Amino acid sequence: MPRLKLTIAYVGTRFSGWQLQDYKMKKQPRTVQGELEKAVHRLLGSHAGEAPVRVFGAGRTDAGVHAEGQVAHLDIPEGVRLEDWPRGFSALLPHDMAVTSIAVVPPDFHARMDATGKRYSYELWLDRSHLPPRLREFTWQTGPLDIAAMQQAVLPLIGQHDFASFQNSGSEVKTTIRTISAIHCEETGPSRLLWHFEADGFLKQMVRNLMGLLVQVGQGKLDAARVPDFLEARNRQALPSPTAPAQGLTLMKVFY
Amino acid sequence: MPRLKLTIAYVGTRFSGWQLQDYKMKKQPRTVQGELEKAVHRLLGSHAGEAPVRVFGAGRTDAGVHAEGQVAHLDIPEGVRLEDWPRGFSALLPHDMAVTSIAVVPPDFHARMDATGKRYSYELWLDRSHLPPRLREFTWQTGPLDIAAMQQAVLPLIGQHDFASFQNSGSEVKTTIRTISAIHCEETGPSRLLWHFEADGFLKQMVRNLMGLLVQVGQGKLDAARVPDFLEARNRQALPSPTAPAQGLTLMKVFY
Repeated sequence: MPRLKLTIAYVGTRFSGWQLQDYKMKKQPRTVQGELEKAVHRLLGSHAGEAPVRVFGAGRTDAGVHAEGQVAHLDIPEGVRLEDWPRGFSALLPHDMAVTSIAVVPPDFHARMDATGKRYSYELWLDRSHLPPRLREFTWQTGPLDIAAMQQAVLPLIGQHDFASFQNSGSEVKTTIRTISAIHCEETGPSRLLWHFEADGFLKQMVRNLMGLLVQVGQGKLDAARVPDFLEARNRQALPSPTAPAQGLTLMKVFY
Repeated sequence: MPRLKLTIAYVGTRFSGWQLQDYKMKKQPRTVQGELEKAVHRLLGSHAGEAPVRVFGAGRTDAGVHAEGQVAHLDIPEGVRLEDWPRGFSALLPHDMAVTSIAVVPPDFHARMDATGKRYSYELWLDRSHLPPRLREFTWQTGPLDIAAMQQAVLPLIGQHDFASFQNSGSEVKTTIRTISAIHCEETGPSRLLWHFEADGFLKQMVRNLMGLLVQVGQGKLDAARVPDFLEARNRQALPSPTAPAQGLTLMKVFY
C-alpha cells in the first residue's frame, strides 16, 4: 500500500489538540487528526474500506497550539489517483486547517519515529495596556521584558541535557535527554517578540516550560544564574515558573 | 451628562457587523454595538437606568469587517467614576473585541457627524496554491497581481469625484461626492499586499468596490484606462467588477 506524507497547517484555537482521544467515545471532540481522517475517507471514495484510514502525526499538539508544518503519514489502497487530492483537501477540510503538501514516501517512512528534529515558535506581546484582538489567539501578553537577561538564561539550556525539569506529567518516554540546537528571538514589531526553539525532539510541554522560565527571567522574577540548578534538579517541581499558555505556540517544522 | 469617546478594535469574523439591527427583535444577532452596550450597562452598575445606554458609532462596518480604530460616543450619568473602566472593559468584553481608549469629550462631540475622514486597509494574498489558515479571516486570496497596472488604475480615483458607481444599494446619503486623499499599497510579506484607502468619507461598501475593481485590473481582466468611464457612469451597474469580500477589510482610523 502506498504511504503518503502530509504537511499540515492549522489554527489550534478551536481544536482539542491533534489527537483523537478515544476511538470509542460517542461524541468525539474536534481534533486535527479527526478532521483529516474524515477528509481522507471522503477522498478515497469507492476505495475507502469500512474502517477509517488512520493518520499518524509526528507529534501531538495540545489544544490551542498552532501548526504551520505539522507532518503525518497514512497508507492508502493501491490504485488511488492523487491528482485531485490537493483541491479535494481544500474543499473538504474546515476553514482553520490546510494540507500544504502531499508526498508519496517509502512504505517504511514514519512521521514520528523518523523525525530528526522540530522547530517551534512562540510569540510574546510586550505591551501590557493593549493587545489587539486579532493577536489574542496567537500570543502571550507578558508586559515589558528584559531581553538581555532572557538571552543570558538561554545559554545553559543549549546543547544536550536531561530536561526532566521541563517535562509535564502524563507522557511516557524512554529518556528525558534532548539536544537543543537553538533558542533565539526576533523582534517582529514594536511590541512583538518571536522566540524560536529547535531541538532533536521536545518532551511534553517542554517548549511551553522553557518559555515560561524565560519570561519569568525577563520579568525580573527569576535570576538567569539559577537556570543550571533548575536543569540539575531533573524534576518539574523544582522549576518555579509556570507553563506558558498554549496559544502563543506554533509547530513550525519537522525535520527528517 | 458627560459624553465619552471610545476607540474600539475588533475581529469582525464572528460579528453580524457593527449595528444592532432592530431593537425589538427577540433574538439579537451578535453585534459590536450590542456587546459594547451590554458591557457599559454592567460598568454603570447602580448608575444604570432602565433603558440601556445607546452607543453611537462613527460608521457601520459590515459582517466580517474588522476594526483597529473604530470610534463611538455615548452619554453616561453624572458622578460615574471612570478609573476602573479600562480594566472593566477588558474583563467584560468578549475575546474578539477591545476598547483601546476612553476619553471624556465635550457634550456636542458626535462620532459620526464630526468625523473628517477615515482610513481603511485591505489585505490581499497573492499565492493561489496556499493560504495559511491563520490568515483566512483577514485576507482575500486573489492569486498573482500586476501591481503596476493597479497603481495606474488608482490615479483617476484620487481627488474629489462622484463615487456613485462605487456605492452598493441600501443606504441613504445626501451626496455621493467624496474626496479620496490616498490609495497606496505596501508589500508586507512575500505574498502579502496591504492596500490603504483614505478619504473624507466612504459610501456603502465603497472600499470593497474600489478593491474589487483594482484586483480585476491587477488580474488583467479590466483595463486601467477604463476607470474614468466607470466613475463617469455614476451607476454601480456600470462597474463590471465584484465587491471585494468583507474579511480583507479593516477600519484603521477615524479622523476628527
